[in-house]
Amino acid sequence: METNKKAWSGRFNEPVSALVERYTASISFDYRLAEYDIQGSLAHAQMLANQGIITREDFTAIEQGLKQISDEIHDGQFAWSLQLEDVHLNIEKRLTQLIGDAGKRLHTGRSRNDQVATDIRLYLRASIDEIIHLTLSLQSAIVNLAKKHAETVMPGFTHLQVAQPVTFGHHLMAYFEMLKRDVERLTDCRKRVNQLPLGAAALAGTSYPINREQVAQTLSFEGVCENSLDAVSDRDFAIEFCACASLIMTHLSRISEEFILWMSPAVGFITLADRFCTGSSIMPQKKNPDVPELVRGKTGRINGHLVALLTLMKAQPLAYNKDNQEDKEPLFDTVDTLVDTLRIYADMLSGVQVNQAAMRKAALQGFATATDLADYLVKKGIPFRDAHEIVARSVQYAEQKGCDLGDLELAELQRFSPQIASDIFSVLTLEGSLNSRDHLGGTAPNQVHKAITRADKWLTNEQT
Amino acid sequence: METNKKAWSGRFNEPVSALVERYTASISFDYRLAEYDIQGSLAHAQMLANQGIITREDFTAIEQGLKQISDEIHDGQFAWSLQLEDVHLNIEKRLTQLIGDAGKRLHTGRSRNDQVATDIRLYLRASIDEIIHLTLSLQSAIVNLAKKHAETVMPGFTHLQVAQPVTFGHHLMAYFEMLKRDVERLTDCRKRVNQLPLGAAALAGTSYPINREQVAQTLSFEGVCENSLDAVSDRDFAIEFCACASLIMTHLSRISEEFILWMSPAVGFITLADRFCTGSSIMPQKKNPDVPELVRGKTGRINGHLVALLTLMKAQPLAYNKDNQEDKEPLFDTVDTLVDTLRIYADMLSGVQVNQAAMRKAALQGFATATDLADYLVKKGIPFRDAHEIVARSVQYAEQKGCDLGDLELAELQRFSPQIASDIFSVLTLEGSLNSRDHLGGTAPNQVHKAITRADKWLTNEQT
Amino acid sequence: METNKKAWSGRFNEPVSALVERYTASISFDYRLAEYDIQGSLAHAQMLANQGIITREDFTAIEQGLKQISDEIHDGQFAWSLQLEDVHLNIEKRLTQLIGDAGKRLHTGRSRNDQVATDIRLYLRASIDEIIHLTLSLQSAIVNLAKKHAETVMPGFTHLQVAQPVTFGHHLMAYFEMLKRDVERLTDCRKRVNQLPLGAAALAGTSYPINREQVAQTLSFEGVCENSLDAVSDRDFAIEFCACASLIMTHLSRISEEFILWMSPAVGFITLADRFCTGSSIMPQKKNPDVPELVRGKTGRINGHLVALLTLMKAQPLAYNKDNQEDKEPLFDTVDTLVDTLRIYADMLSGVQVNQAAMRKAALQGFATATDLADYLVKKGIPFRDAHEIVARSVQYAEQKGCDLGDLELAELQRFSPQIASDIFSVLTLEGSLNSRDHLGGTAPNQVHKAITRADKWLTNEQT
Amino acid sequence: METNKKAWSGRFNEPVSALVERYTASISFDYRLAEYDIQGSLAHAQMLANQGIITREDFTAIEQGLKQISDEIHDGQFAWSLQLEDVHLNIEKRLTQLIGDAGKRLHTGRSRNDQVATDIRLYLRASIDEIIHLTLSLQSAIVNLAKKHAETVMPGFTHLQVAQPVTFGHHLMAYFEMLKRDVERLTDCRKRVNQLPLGAAALAGTSYPINREQVAQTLSFEGVCENSLDAVSDRDFAIEFCACASLIMTHLSRISEEFILWMSPAVGFITLADRFCTGSSIMPQKKNPDVPELVRGKTGRINGHLVALLTLMKAQPLAYNKDNQEDKEPLFDTVDTLVDTLRIYADMLSGVQVNQAAMRKAALQGFATATDLADYLVKKGIPFRDAHEIVARSVQYAEQKGCDLGDLELAELQRFSPQIASDIFSVLTLEGSLNSRDHLGGTAPNQVHKAITRADKWLTNEQT
Repeated sequence: METNKKAWSGRFNEPVSALVERYTASISFDYRLAEYDIQGSLAHAQMLANQGIITREDFTAIEQGLKQISDEIHDGQFAWSLQLEDVHLNIEKRLTQLIGDAGKRLHTGRSRNDQVATDIRLYLRASIDEIIHLTLSLQSAIVNLAKKHAETVMPGFTHLQVAQPVTFGHHLMAYFEMLKRDVERLTDCRKRVNQLPLGAAALAGTSYPINREQVAQTLSFEGVCENSLDAVSDRDFAIEFCACASLIMTHLSRISEEFILWMSPAVGFITLADRFCTGSSIMPQKKNPDVPELVRGKTGRINGHLVALLTLMKAQPLAYNKDNQEDKEPLFDTVDTLVDTLRIYADMLSGVQVNQAAMRKAALQGFATATDLADYLVKKGIPFRDAHEIVARSVQYAEQKGCDLGDLELAELQRFSPQIASDIFSVLTLEGSLNSRDHLGGTAPNQVHKAITRADKWLTNEQT
Repeated sequence: METNKKAWSGRFNEPVSALVERYTASISFDYRLAEYDIQGSLAHAQMLANQGIITREDFTAIEQGLKQISDEIHDGQFAWSLQLEDVHLNIEKRLTQLIGDAGKRLHTGRSRNDQVATDIRLYLRASIDEIIHLTLSLQSAIVNLAKKHAETVMPGFTHLQVAQPVTFGHHLMAYFEMLKRDVERLTDCRKRVNQLPLGAAALAGTSYPINREQVAQTLSFEGVCENSLDAVSDRDFAIEFCACASLIMTHLSRISEEFILWMSPAVGFITLADRFCTGSSIMPQKKNPDVPELVRGKTGRINGHLVALLTLMKAQPLAYNKDNQEDKEPLFDTVDTLVDTLRIYADMLSGVQVNQAAMRKAALQGFATATDLADYLVKKGIPFRDAHEIVARSVQYAEQKGCDLGDLELAELQRFSPQIASDIFSVLTLEGSLNSRDHLGGTAPNQVHKAITRADKWLTNEQT
Repeated sequence: METNKKAWSGRFNEPVSALVERYTASISFDYRLAEYDIQGSLAHAQMLANQGIITREDFTAIEQGLKQISDEIHDGQFAWSLQLEDVHLNIEKRLTQLIGDAGKRLHTGRSRNDQVATDIRLYLRASIDEIIHLTLSLQSAIVNLAKKHAETVMPGFTHLQVAQPVTFGHHLMAYFEMLKRDVERLTDCRKRVNQLPLGAAALAGTSYPINREQVAQTLSFEGVCENSLDAVSDRDFAIEFCACASLIMTHLSRISEEFILWMSPAVGFITLADRFCTGSSIMPQKKNPDVPELVRGKTGRINGHLVALLTLMKAQPLAYNKDNQEDKEPLFDTVDTLVDTLRIYADMLSGVQVNQAAMRKAALQGFATATDLADYLVKKGIPFRDAHEIVARSVQYAEQKGCDLGDLELAELQRFSPQIASDIFSVLTLEGSLNSRDHLGGTAPNQVHKAITRADKWLTNEQT
Repeated sequence: METNKKAWSGRFNEPVSALVERYTASISFDYRLAEYDIQGSLAHAQMLANQGIITREDFTAIEQGLKQISDEIHDGQFAWSLQLEDVHLNIEKRLTQLIGDAGKRLHTGRSRNDQVATDIRLYLRASIDEIIHLTLSLQSAIVNLAKKHAETVMPGFTHLQVAQPVTFGHHLMAYFEMLKRDVERLTDCRKRVNQLPLGAAALAGTSYPINREQVAQTLSFEGVCENSLDAVSDRDFAIEFCACASLIMTHLSRISEEFILWMSPAVGFITLADRFCTGSSIMPQKKNPDVPELVRGKTGRINGHLVALLTLMKAQPLAYNKDNQEDKEPLFDTVDTLVDTLRIYADMLSGVQVNQAAMRKAALQGFATATDLADYLVKKGIPFRDAHEIVARSVQYAEQKGCDLGDLELAELQRFSPQIASDIFSVLTLEGSLNSRDHLGGTAPNQVHKAITRADKWLTNEQT
């Protein structure tokens, strides 16, 4: 467990010059880019050698040196130094220790400005791939649960009032749709992340005969940033990613809100597996939905990071300014939060216990099939307004009698309209109502099954 | 000019019931959707008739009634009523006045929940098309200015310090790249806007035998929202659009910041046409860059709208809640602000006057070619670190002499390194420095011309 | 009803020069400052006359002219002109029409920069007073409802799980406390709003022998902005106010969330009066809590305005920049939203119908007095951990039996611990639990009554 | 240097159950509250003993145990455990290890809900005191610099255009005013932080005869949170503090923007000490203003945290929800950022080198005294509009001649108006202009000296 002595020892013991050093250094967070910094350096060195800018011998030495550094970092043996400011200088310095002057020549034709931009893009590309993968897993968990409940009745709510019956599977598949858009957005965002800034050097390009297309190919970038000033100063990709992340968290905040409501004793639709909850040592039946609550809360964190980045970039003149160093922490935390949250959520969904009886009971509480009766009457030729009045009087009658519309006798119903016939009961039951909404996007179990089939196909396609 | 008596007459004269009516009604802003509401209703009615849900005669009456209403709105003859809450009821009520019961049958198989979602998507789709068009116009204006200045030297800045010479054309093309990404993002966003919610009815679909694919086709939607609960509650598209808008404004805030700096007397790189500035009646040479300042300020407004929408959707349970009515004003204002700003900016760019002498003078101020001298020495085989020391001493010498590196005699330069030969002067001049950065994305005029050619081609392609 | 032809006629018919005029003008929104502009001008003119900078005759003419303009505005006769940009020039121009050269002399020793800052502060001071007044009214409504329900039992929730019984009055008084802090914050904010910028002129002060303290006194400002550069560029007061507003809306979003939950049929704790809800024509028992939902949604709007203003001011160099014109619309909308929302809320609270039976039933659902049993045992000397185990077994037993702890026989309870005596029943009932929490801030009815008494006293004090 | 192996080892090696444990635990960040947790526990234990709820012996044991734990933490010997979730359980568990059952009795009459609220308030109170102290130090540094430059002329800007001459001291004192408001706001905020939640227990108070006023007194709280539900769920104080922090950072972003501009070679008004900048190894004269750029960038971070907290609290039902655990990281980072930034800034200001010649030269560039000439003429009785025309023609003449107004001969000036006399030169010089703005808040050196005297007095008062 990390302990931070600073909080105890008092910040004032630190001399200002050390404070400035710490304040301006980024190594305390950008060490995370090491893997990508090494990847980028390798591709750059290879191109320099191919172009004859450095020798083959230099390239071989660089390759070996970076391999060793990579191993040292993996093994926790690498000595990061605050004095060396950032991940780039830490690695370069160590490389020069290991291989001498060849290490210094690695930096030919590049600058830290284009180097860091390349590192972040490599990092973010890998992170997006991981997040897409995790989102697909969560969608699979949703589809699996929806399959089991394609015919489970629950009340459909508007304004948190019971409106019409839906199936739980249909309700769940709404979240599949949201996350599908999230995957599409991330995929679109990835295209713009996946462009190579390297070669822009400090801001204007370099006088060495570099070959940027080659570096792009080595690193699997789809293209090359076509303007050097833009390449070093652009952080659009980080903002676009954070906007995608805010939407993912918004979706998860909505399902979390529902889980919390559904776990509340008055509702009692579901139970989550114990490890996602805290209990009470004296009330064994009680479960606090900690994970959904935390996810709901973490939406704020992610929205905050988006605002941080937008504020950061507002009104910055070209090209690189030191402000941009502030892009990393919000981005890293956004990735970490998403990765953890998505992974937990997929696992949590697979352990949802559904209380079908409670759902059905709640669906019967609010005269949820009243609109079905109205539609029935309209189809029999009764004008809309008249139909509404008939339904209102029937509902009032049933309410006084303390039952649902479907529990009334045919004779009772016919008191309100003689056009009501015995086929009404297939309409007034929850299942009748559900089955009647049988078109693309409707809640009929038939449609839910179709939606699940489409979803399975889409998932298979995306996962490959 | 609209005057708001409320501010004067005191809000307290308004009875609470009238306040509630005003508070919950949306007609004061959603009247703007009328055009799209009518489009959507026409497509819906046509489908109802095709499916035999309403008669041909009803459809013809609806078509004629809506045509008349559309005309009345265009002509400013339509009497909007606060009592009728929203654009949908205002139009439906008028339709029923005009054509009787057929007007009431228009609402068969739909609900205001899916209707309003359809209207906003139609509105936003049209708005995105307009904004893309205006962005392309602004990009054209940038390219045109860049063409004239593909060889105009200016200092390239990092940290607002002179770093290396660039061309003004190259600098401008950085903004072309930003806006190109904006167009791509809007195009990606449009796909997700362009999905039909109609048919989701209140939340669960409808029991009428509707044909959603047909309505989608009539209205040129690319697809159909595949889950009814999601269809009525989703506002992702509005958030995604606002995130795109925030990035556009961020880009414009950056160029605005630069324009303001460049207009400042100490810099004096450019002048804007008078109509974008306010002057001083007593200092004729003075110009306040009002438009760039306002654009910089309006970035806050747009970021604020994005936060408003994200906050709005956080933790909303499914399906439709009245909260969603709050989506419109931020969205409308974002569209209006973008449309006005982009249009003004394109016009403003075409009137930029460039002070080439001031740019060149500033580029000569900061020993901007010092890195070129270092690169020159490294290429001659001098180790990087030694080269740096040679340059540092040369710069110090030139600084004491009060001139730029390129103004020194060969003999003077050779005092610092005998390997400097007469070819150094093609390196040390601003033009030499520029021309040497001759690779994809570099600032060499040759590359700027190529970038402009690519840009012209891309624009032609996008505009068609 | 305002109709905006622009949306229909196409923005492109507007020539760019007209667009620039509209874009840079503020009169479309700052006309709302007219009342305060006139107040400020009168005080300024009086001081100019007192200092001998203008003549008494000029002052009299100005006074009469401004009086007439004020009347014209009240009567809706004033012709606002977009060409005259803003409220200041519109009024000054009309004044000069009415009284000739004296009108021009009004502007002596001031500038629009300090004039607009003065206007906004006067406007905001009046708005804060109104908002404080409305908040106090809402607090009165809360206290009145709490009085009626100082002894009404409801379940106290943590994690939306039933935790311990509380009284509804106690629950309501939590909101009283939140709003009390809001009033304190607004009062603190008001001190900083209530400082006079006038006299700062454009940015540096004026060479006329003005008397700023005198103007401050006339306008009831508490002090004078002590640095002219700060006076014209400061918008802290607007940001601080918007931060206060965000907290108020956050509080109202919380009670709104609760109202929506409590109106949901599974909970059914309260009913709101019809005029704050929409109903269903066919389900007479159904009520959508429109107003609470809108309030919850409007929280986003207000948070967005705060972000807009913070983004606006970020990194603005001194002194006045045109960006600042963007401060008004977010501020005005924040005030309007608060004023309407607070007023509606106070009225809505006075019509809340409480379903006490439902509350009591829910309180009995979750073994809400289990912690009371544990505390009872600990007080009898049983170690905490052992006490917990005893309670857990009792709860399990009661759960199987399908009753609450308080419904068990003494003999049954004693099976789990012989130290349980007949005094346990005063502990295990809801009332026993409530009454035991009898300390400052606790939920015992006795404490709720005390809290209400303190609240009444505080309200009386604040209202005078 | 902390290294995070996670980034390398792959997140997927972590089993989900460990992930849930990590996800829900707060010890990785709330260990920082340990000092305050111990303070709070001591005060609570003392009260429990005084009230006879625990024995004196227990209290003595608790006191000694907590003392030892405090020492262990100071010495870095304390073994924090993720399994024990949070700082409270970590300390309680260790206490029980050390002193047995008495350790368990410490938790009598409280809950983690009120305990954590107390800890954060103690932490934030101490942090506010530190931040106020640091702000006062920064203000002292400003005043010291202003003292040296009470008569140093620089151009006063509006719209980044030269408007009128001001003194550098006056310009600096604008920031003194901003920070003064910040201190006032923090002081107001502190009152609301400084209220005791302890005693609210889980949400409803406790059945033990606690004495909350006594605990408040021991811990130097000004008051007691008067409603238990509010006490455990309120995070207003954190939001209010973050809003204060956003304003402080906004102010620092403005002076940072100015420092960056002033360091730019075209402006060249100031130089910062080397340790706040990075240089170039080959361009010794170049300095990148790293610290001001980072400060400008960190404004985004702080605004983001404010948004995070507001989003977090939106629509949370009462009372405590796990979401609230997300309050700490934004708050801690806000405090850390402010503390570091303020401290660096005070030090940085004391090393600012001013280039008075550059400032004066720039002040002469823009006919900055033209308004002084106009005022002079108006005072001689010439109508405003005529005066303006005279000035405009004079400026045009001077511009053509390539000099400032004050450089013209009397005869030349009289060509434009015979009323111009030799006293004009005391008006047209920079010093004449400055000295004429001699009223409270004006830029006259006389007023700047007075403002500095007031500031010194205020600082002395605040620091004690």
